[in-house]
Amino acid sequence: MADSPTETVSGPNAEIMRATYRALREHGYADLTIQRIADEYGKSTAAIHYHYDTKEDLLAAFLDYILDRFKDTVHEVETTAPEQRLELLLDKLLVDPQDHQDLLVAILEMRSQAPYKERFSDRFRQNDEYVRYLLRTVIDQGIEEGVFADVDSDHVSRALMTIVDGARTRAVVLDAEQSLTTARRTADEYVQAVLQPSFSN
Amino acid sequence: MADSPTETVSGPNAEIMRATYRALREHGYADLTIQRIADEYGKSTAAIHYHYDTKEDLLAAFLDYILDRFKDTVHEVETTAPEQRLELLLDKLLVDPQDHQDLLVAILEMRSQAPYKERFSDRFRQNDEYVRYLLRTVIDQGIEEGVFADVDSDHVSRALMTIVDGARTRAVVLDAEQSLTTARRTADEYVQAVLQPSFSN
Repeated sequence: MADSPTETVSGPNAEIMRATYRALREHGYADLTIQRIADEYGKSTAAIHYHYDTKEDLLAAFLDYILDRFKDTVHEVETTAPEQRLELLLDKLLVDPQDHQDLLVAILEMRSQAPYKERFSDRFRQNDEYVRYLLRTVIDQGIEEGVFADVDSDHVSRALMTIVDGARTRAVVLDAEQSLTTARRTADEYVQAVLQPSFSN
Repeated sequence: MADSPTETVSGPNAEIMRATYRALREHGYADLTIQRIADEYGKSTAAIHYHYDTKEDLLAAFLDYILDRFKDTVHEVETTAPEQRLELLLDKLLVDPQDHQDLLVAILEMRSQAPYKERFSDRFRQNDEYVRYLLRTVIDQGIEEGVFADVDSDHVSRALMTIVDGARTRAVVLDAEQSLTTARRTADEYVQAVLQPSFSN
């Protein structure tokens, strides 16, 4: 999951991705058709099929696209202090999605199809690996600098992603704002408990 | 979410529920039809439509059924010591599902449809409220007995369900065993950090 698509990418493919995003927000995953994306794109379905053979091809590309957008926003984080950098990452994962409830809904539908669609499954796996790599890196940096306890950074990054994914699912099924707020607080409590240097792990 | 259906309920409805469970495991949610449930039931589709008008009616009843089965297994927990009771509840939520990966897949598909189907949404909300009530009760009991810190038990129960729901989603989309094992360890770390009486909240 990621931030909303921004206007930094250009070309026909980027325009199709933005049209897909709008069509997903409006119709959801199950009712998404190439025709509806073409309507948002302002061109014919042939203009989309020129780039993507099937709806599944297009949606796999869309999952790549939102990961790329997320990477762009992460690159904007210029802070290098590990504690602050970790907080900002958790904000991007748990605060920013509050403005994109309809994208969370569409993504959960695609996630639920991962067992049946390998290309979706591949993307979600890559996305998860990338975000865990970011978390692990900042945690390892903090350990090296002595501001975090000497924890198993692989486990801690998985634990934080468990909280993030719990929040994303609960935001769709239950109350969105409360789910994300609870998860942000839970992540802080967990980080404080596990990463403070005095914590005996 | 809940444990697997057991054989404690009888009557035609319970038989239909067990047939639904088998059909869901075999075909998944999207490809589930009344015909396929009837095949598992060993009777005609008319015999099912006698009890349930639509597939959605039947699946709403199925969500009630698995919550009831979960309640049955919780009632088996006879321990009254709060720490141990909380551990056993977390085992039921995070260890038992390891044997029911295909049920987790079907449930995630239904969860992703909650924004479109109010009867699914109602069931998931009730299920979540029930499990949070169980968690809150045992936490409040521990606070009263002085074995847990004086925490906000409503928040802690929501935090634990965030970890549980993260595990359920990750078990479907990523590696099932690792996702549940990580979440069980995370829940323990969280409980230890937040509920130990010395923790300053």
